[in-house]
Amino acid sequence: MASVSVVPASEASAPSLKVSANDCSTNGITECISSFKAADAVIELAPTLKPKPDPSDLVFGTVFTDHMLTIEWTSTGGWQKPHICPFHNLSIHPAGSALHYAVQLFEGMKAYRGPDNVLRLFRPMLNMKRMLKSAERACLPSFDAVELLECIRKLVVVDQEWVPQSDSASLYIRPTFLGTEPSLGVKKPSSALLYVILSPVGSYFSTGYKPVSLWADPKYVRAWKGGTGDCKMGGNYGASIYAQYEAIDYGCQQVLWLYGEDHQITEAGTMNLFLYWINENGEEELATPPLDGIILPGVIRQSILELTRKWGMFKVSERYLTMADLCCALKENRVKEMFGSGTACVVCSVSQVLYKGQNLDIPCLGDCPPLASRLLKELSDIQYGRTPCDWVCLV
Amino acid sequence: MASVSVVPASEASAPSLKVSANDCSTNGITECISSFKAADAVIELAPTLKPKPDPSDLVFGTVFTDHMLTIEWTSTGGWQKPHICPFHNLSIHPAGSALHYAVQLFEGMKAYRGPDNVLRLFRPMLNMKRMLKSAERACLPSFDAVELLECIRKLVVVDQEWVPQSDSASLYIRPTFLGTEPSLGVKKPSSALLYVILSPVGSYFSTGYKPVSLWADPKYVRAWKGGTGDCKMGGNYGASIYAQYEAIDYGCQQVLWLYGEDHQITEAGTMNLFLYWINENGEEELATPPLDGIILPGVIRQSILELTRKWGMFKVSERYLTMADLCCALKENRVKEMFGSGTACVVCSVSQVLYKGQNLDIPCLGDCPPLASRLLKELSDIQYGRTPCDWVCLV
Repeated sequence: MASVSVVPASEASAPSLKVSANDCSTNGITECISSFKAADAVIELAPTLKPKPDPSDLVFGTVFTDHMLTIEWTSTGGWQKPHICPFHNLSIHPAGSALHYAVQLFEGMKAYRGPDNVLRLFRPMLNMKRMLKSAERACLPSFDAVELLECIRKLVVVDQEWVPQSDSASLYIRPTFLGTEPSLGVKKPSSALLYVILSPVGSYFSTGYKPVSLWADPKYVRAWKGGTGDCKMGGNYGASIYAQYEAIDYGCQQVLWLYGEDHQITEAGTMNLFLYWINENGEEELATPPLDGIILPGVIRQSILELTRKWGMFKVSERYLTMADLCCALKENRVKEMFGSGTACVVCSVSQVLYKGQNLDIPCLGDCPPLASRLLKELSDIQYGRTPCDWVCLV
Repeated sequence: MASVSVVPASEASAPSLKVSANDCSTNGITECISSFKAADAVIELAPTLKPKPDPSDLVFGTVFTDHMLTIEWTSTGGWQKPHICPFHNLSIHPAGSALHYAVQLFEGMKAYRGPDNVLRLFRPMLNMKRMLKSAERACLPSFDAVELLECIRKLVVVDQEWVPQSDSASLYIRPTFLGTEPSLGVKKPSSALLYVILSPVGSYFSTGYKPVSLWADPKYVRAWKGGTGDCKMGGNYGASIYAQYEAIDYGCQQVLWLYGEDHQITEAGTMNLFLYWINENGEEELATPPLDGIILPGVIRQSILELTRKWGMFKVSERYLTMADLCCALKENRVKEMFGSGTACVVCSVSQVLYKGQNLDIPCLGDCPPLASRLLKELSDIQYGRTPCDWVCLV
């Protein structure tokens, strides 16, 4: 990694992040006395820049930008200065706790380029808050969420040419936090590395909006009470891959994760899950499982709940849903739509669920059901700045 | 990492591993057509050797030997040649799947130097079989267990001076297997790295045999049906650290992991757990939870079951045990001993369990209860070659 120039962060940065009351609120963040500061960031630019790919050819998470952010921590020295530096492989001690005991967590967020050529982040403080929560659960050190967000903003500014000129592509931002303790005891790490990489991603629905089929089997359980399912820790994901391939063996695209004796519907693949139906009391309802410890508190999940509650057009509930509820509602023609939500797709409709050997058809109305379509449009319009909203932060 | 010499493996290796029917049996291992071969190993010796530490000063897993074993795999090229090379940091792509999704697993085993100066491994094929099982669950590629064991043997031969001259210290062997897929999709990795590092470790009971106190609270759950608790995957461990520190806050040393509404006793810290008692039917019994998917199939666990069954002195059971069973038995003075088992300690007695705000005293008979003492002695005698047994493999 050759160094070409080291400039003070202040010279490379655009005006500070503009935050509003709703999108980037620091409410609920305990002040972290010991944290790195974005103002201390050292920027080392890459000597040569890679060619930018065509957004329409991109496979998710395979292409990375020219730079990355790294911030080191030790229990004795605390947080070091943030570094924005050329994208490079990490040098990790072979006994590192991230490699043996999955002392690791990540976040997923995106930067969007609007038709006004302005770059926006979508409710990034929700990601920062969730990252702090995951860090606590993983026994990794705390930090000031506002400072990390400002560091991320600086990184996006450095690699701003990588944010696609597109109304559906974006720049995926992957903050990652690793324990780097170089010894084999299972304990709180005495050193850690927080880093952020950026990857331009195409439209999730580049070949058209496509509903997915889900395999629902209680054989594999994604998360459980007393575990880490409500944190974005690596262990939740590695354990899920085996089931994902079994879903594919059954001709389905993703796993519908069930929980408990009553086969509660929890999540699908790596998405939160919504059921839009006429409920058992005859009410029109949009329902998603409550945040009871086994559900990831998704940013899109929260945004869908807030948006639809504001519409006031139907009941919006965080409630338990079982496979029996779904089967009964399908039999009685009470299901209107079912969809997953996540940063990658925003919303993704479900067309079929394979359960106990039976294919359950979920209404999809020509692949593009009205509620999912409306949510996809309204949220995308906010993310790309086509609809003004205080959920976005300008970069 | 400077290279000084590259010699064919055959020149550096001692005679091949001696295996017997019981200790290193390959029964149950599906033949892996595509595997690395120990005979292809390339050995690059370190230019300078580190000073060996005093075994009595060692903190577990903090000091490493001069060399390590690395074997790379890609989905297109298959397994590459094994490399025994100077100990070095790993260069890992920042999007690597081991870092984001905990596509990772490990094993723990030891090499012992006997009074005859011969080096021995204890039932290493059990570790190899378990590693293959973990690899399948983690969607990492398979390999030939016999070939990996032979590679490990070659590595131990290269670093044989690091196996302590001691009747209680040993050389800890840490095989590790990582997904190195350099992209962010949650999927089967297309590249992987298997490596082995060695760490000399002192006596677990260097300051005398010490029973431990356990904190039993259903608040945190180590493993669950449909998860990965029966595999040695990193995610199981990282998720446990937070609870471990809560145990310490309560004045206890380790967590007694409970499961289910009936508070089943499952494991303690990173150990399997045994209860030696007069059971509810008045029978003298050594009991440990069955391998029902949430219990790690420990090598020492299996050895204790086989050894005590051979003794034929009391009933030996794999059965469920609940906190209610324990509390009732303590009240009626039916508990004789409780102890954990693992590679690090062999056996480790439990003196106290904090449960629902009450300290339950477990009989410990002067810190060194007779069954735990006998097991520690018999197993150590086998490991160090003081008692001949086909459970050991000569290095």
